[in-house]
Amino acid sequence: MGEVLRRYWMPALLSEEMPEADCAPVRVRLLGEDLIAFRDTDGRIGVLDRFCPHRRVDLFFGRNEECGLRCVYHGWKFDVSGNVLDMPAEPANSPMRDEVKIKSYPAMEWGGLIWVYMGDPDHMPDRPPELEWGLVPSTHRNIQKRLQENNYAQGVEGGIDSSHVGILHSLLSPREPGRGFRERQQAIDPRLSFLAQDTAPKFFVRPSDYGMLIGARRKASEEEFYWRITQFLAPFYTMIAPRSPEGPIAGHAWVPIDDYNTWTFTMYWSPDRPLREFEGLDSAKVNVPVLDDGSFKPVHNRSNNYGIDRAMQRDKNSTGIIGIGLQDSAIQETMGPIVDRSREMLGSGDAAIVAWRKLMLALADELESTGKLHQPLQPEIYRVRSAGIVLPRGVDFADGARERMTVA
Amino acid sequence: MGEVLRRYWMPALLSEEMPEADCAPVRVRLLGEDLIAFRDTDGRIGVLDRFCPHRRVDLFFGRNEECGLRCVYHGWKFDVSGNVLDMPAEPANSPMRDEVKIKSYPAMEWGGLIWVYMGDPDHMPDRPPELEWGLVPSTHRNIQKRLQENNYAQGVEGGIDSSHVGILHSLLSPREPGRGFRERQQAIDPRLSFLAQDTAPKFFVRPSDYGMLIGARRKASEEEFYWRITQFLAPFYTMIAPRSPEGPIAGHAWVPIDDYNTWTFTMYWSPDRPLREFEGLDSAKVNVPVLDDGSFKPVHNRSNNYGIDRAMQRDKNSTGIIGIGLQDSAIQETMGPIVDRSREMLGSGDAAIVAWRKLMLALADELESTGKLHQPLQPEIYRVRSAGIVLPRGVDFADGARERMTVA
Amino acid sequence: MGEVLRRYWMPALLSEEMPEADCAPVRVRLLGEDLIAFRDTDGRIGVLDRFCPHRRVDLFFGRNEECGLRCVYHGWKFDVSGNVLDMPAEPANSPMRDEVKIKSYPAMEWGGLIWVYMGDPDHMPDRPPELEWGLVPSTHRNIQKRLQENNYAQGVEGGIDSSHVGILHSLLSPREPGRGFRERQQAIDPRLSFLAQDTAPKFFVRPSDYGMLIGARRKASEEEFYWRITQFLAPFYTMIAPRSPEGPIAGHAWVPIDDYNTWTFTMYWSPDRPLREFEGLDSAKVNVPVLDDGSFKPVHNRSNNYGIDRAMQRDKNSTGIIGIGLQDSAIQETMGPIVDRSREMLGSGDAAIVAWRKLMLALADELESTGKLHQPLQPEIYRVRSAGIVLPRGVDFADGARERMTVA
Repeated sequence: MGEVLRRYWMPALLSEEMPEADCAPVRVRLLGEDLIAFRDTDGRIGVLDRFCPHRRVDLFFGRNEECGLRCVYHGWKFDVSGNVLDMPAEPANSPMRDEVKIKSYPAMEWGGLIWVYMGDPDHMPDRPPELEWGLVPSTHRNIQKRLQENNYAQGVEGGIDSSHVGILHSLLSPREPGRGFRERQQAIDPRLSFLAQDTAPKFFVRPSDYGMLIGARRKASEEEFYWRITQFLAPFYTMIAPRSPEGPIAGHAWVPIDDYNTWTFTMYWSPDRPLREFEGLDSAKVNVPVLDDGSFKPVHNRSNNYGIDRAMQRDKNSTGIIGIGLQDSAIQETMGPIVDRSREMLGSGDAAIVAWRKLMLALADELESTGKLHQPLQPEIYRVRSAGIVLPRGVDFADGARERMTVA
Repeated sequence: MGEVLRRYWMPALLSEEMPEADCAPVRVRLLGEDLIAFRDTDGRIGVLDRFCPHRRVDLFFGRNEECGLRCVYHGWKFDVSGNVLDMPAEPANSPMRDEVKIKSYPAMEWGGLIWVYMGDPDHMPDRPPELEWGLVPSTHRNIQKRLQENNYAQGVEGGIDSSHVGILHSLLSPREPGRGFRERQQAIDPRLSFLAQDTAPKFFVRPSDYGMLIGARRKASEEEFYWRITQFLAPFYTMIAPRSPEGPIAGHAWVPIDDYNTWTFTMYWSPDRPLREFEGLDSAKVNVPVLDDGSFKPVHNRSNNYGIDRAMQRDKNSTGIIGIGLQDSAIQETMGPIVDRSREMLGSGDAAIVAWRKLMLALADELESTGKLHQPLQPEIYRVRSAGIVLPRGVDFADGARERMTVA
Repeated sequence: MGEVLRRYWMPALLSEEMPEADCAPVRVRLLGEDLIAFRDTDGRIGVLDRFCPHRRVDLFFGRNEECGLRCVYHGWKFDVSGNVLDMPAEPANSPMRDEVKIKSYPAMEWGGLIWVYMGDPDHMPDRPPELEWGLVPSTHRNIQKRLQENNYAQGVEGGIDSSHVGILHSLLSPREPGRGFRERQQAIDPRLSFLAQDTAPKFFVRPSDYGMLIGARRKASEEEFYWRITQFLAPFYTMIAPRSPEGPIAGHAWVPIDDYNTWTFTMYWSPDRPLREFEGLDSAKVNVPVLDDGSFKPVHNRSNNYGIDRAMQRDKNSTGIIGIGLQDSAIQETMGPIVDRSREMLGSGDAAIVAWRKLMLALADELESTGKLHQPLQPEIYRVRSAGIVLPRGVDFADGARERMTVA
């Protein structure tokens, strides 16, 4: 499966983590490999093995000099492509100067992120997938990053799981005197009424060239269905159906650090206008505050039970945990670093998850048997968008939401 | 050996950890199993698998609702017996609603504690053992709980080891100018004089239907012996001989969390009167202050060398550690999580420990060969009490202390 | 290799860690063994197994009494040679009193340190090696100790590696407007000019009865070479070439705690005069401040990236880390607890390191095949000293520096 992931450009860092030429190098761990990223004097991005090939010193402590990162122990200096530029402790005519390279991966900056390609060079796409949040101006988007201490698959599965939305993130409880759980939720936000009225959506999953299209159908009225339509885009992108056509859209990239940890990138964007202040990820409701020590670990994390407030859980929301993002992170982490799937009991509400697992296994099979993946090679196929929409009962969801899902 | 332990009701929590109906669920780990305990709307105790059978989410984050604990991810709700009461994300007619159960264990509240039975249902005793501290009114007892990071056997062995009492817990040192160790101790507390005068007690161990009766004999005078008589009550209860007939009695339950950790419950009780303020566990001398983060880890623990004060150790007591309970905990933990018994050198002062090891192995053999244990099935056989008593040399200790040891 | 190390007296503690008779015992871990050191009433040093042979209690919590360390659990008391002096919980006539011993190692105090011998008693040298810092009066030396979380070999290899001196510890960078790296360094301290002018020294390594003599040759002028001459003294002592004949000399002992940790002792000494205030290790430039919790872990350590200051790294020195000692520690630790030498790429600047590895393997072979080591048995052969010296090109470095290297 690692080979599948390596055939895609992957988000590695926020652009703001390497804000300028010659800034401090940054540790990156991806797919179980320890790497070091730096931006050289010309602004180019280098992603190298984290350890100097000479004596295995950590290049995080390296000095970012003119167009190269220098190991401070004996001064070996590397450019963004992994070539050795200097070996001051070796004689000028040493053959090592030409022979030595450090492992390096192609990297680029796009859409507010630093991207890296860790796969077979012969199959490298020429650019990252054209996800809408990367296409819009930077004023139209907001990207945040957090560490999750669990396998990326638990994140993806949460991202495509419409079933939990009206339960995990629900705003009130059956305890409210005189009012049931569902009525109260509806009163708080009419847009949530469909989620509260029908907590058992029926799933329709269709294969697609980017991954799969998922329609979660709930009752809206006798004549209509409420559809939450989301895409899974290989290998690890998901989107959330927006509450209204005007509101910003949210999506995630669940990037594997290793088998037990994930970088969760959360994107909020508007296709056609700048985000307003406190819209989307600026709001406490969605944003997940992280520690400022470079770890991107949430302030509320496993060690403090995600800041659970039992009074809030009794009176205000299902979890007693603040913020949709942290609710997802918390619940996904509590399953353990890798959930034991042999001990799960999946129901019809888990149909999208079952389909996703099959899809990923099929991609691995395809790569193993043919040596290639047809999907990742066209960045433009990622130009799609999620939708939340009420449609007459007879209308196919993909047809009815086609315009809303299309990215120009 | 785990099977032996499972045939007994075991203390799991202090009652005060689940103070009222519908309070927050509490994590419990016992015999290596991760469990969640909750008190439902009717006050009943549930002890369930800690992880939801649906997607393995930690039920500590569950919502304790009307007569059931609800997983917050997709809303599965369980009653105290492990039945599923609700599955909101599944269709109303899903067969899963009837098929799914979560692992649950019988639990009850008695004697200030929450008890759980984790063994074969066909051999479940109808109630916990009738230890005296559970029988007296709550005004007559004080129970505390602490975490010990070692195997429970090290705790039990400390609890039945009279040899260490006059040494580990002794009050002064040979350094006192002009006064020896033993003389000084005697001067401080005449009741301790026998312990100080004779530090090498002779042990007499007798099998009993509740476990074993241990008499530790010290010289008192030319005509008399000082006997400290304590019981080991299967599978992990011990008692301390009281200093005087009027004083409260102390005892312990050493409950295995797993192979490397123990819940130590310490009980102080008076058979016939309320405890006075600061009597027993309220006093700093005996009490072990614990962190208030729910871990029950002592404030003074391995990481800070148990607060050892070398000046105190030089001038005031053997250890420089405050409190008899913490002295025991400290010394038991320093042996490591499981002491390497192949490297011990046992002497005649360890006779009770040798007997206990044989007893526990015999219980395991009995269970393996016969499928049952005769002992735990009569709760009333636990109605015994320790004693410290001076007897004429010719009197058998069990006869001479019979009245003092009898619980009405 | 452990057997080789055991044939030498090794520094275990600073004398000041056991400042007086009957002071608190101190935990020591050496060559993977957990030991406890104490100073008895007569000032003698005992180094014993850390765990009591009776019940395996940690003797760190023992009571240091009249001429013996007493386990606080059952009172067994041991003298500095490991004999049992008391067993209060055993009968007076117990044969155990004569049979039991605790593991103990010979120990002595010399040169400001506590030394221990852990090897075959039949091959024990009568005293530690006569390193010059141990021979001079205490006013003439300064010894510090720090914990390094890596194998001792990485320390030794840094200690004999002249190549890194002009790079890792260099004072400025190529970024200085209008001035190159080398010119600037020279301007700051003319004594560093040779290091800055010639960063690729040529190594000459010669075997010696104490280990090996290493000459690192740099260009000084058309007629002269600048030689940095250092000794490796078996099994783990190194020295730094002093900048001038008047300045103090520095050296290290890299003592293996276990395969993954090292006690680094750093010595600064003057052969013939008291050190001045703030000379050598008192200065922030060389000294490594350590935590005052007994761990000797540097205040700036891996967990805080050694306090790296990127602005300092850009403008003032290569690393952004304060102090030559910490620069070494940091870089050695970043290689990991044991560097994977199969993934190194050694060059001609690593000639001393290659020679050292061969020497140590040869010592292990010698011990295995002959049962003895001829080298460690003459403490007086350690009476040598490093030197930094400019010599005419035709002069052999050992001849030219002979006087400077000789310890009277």
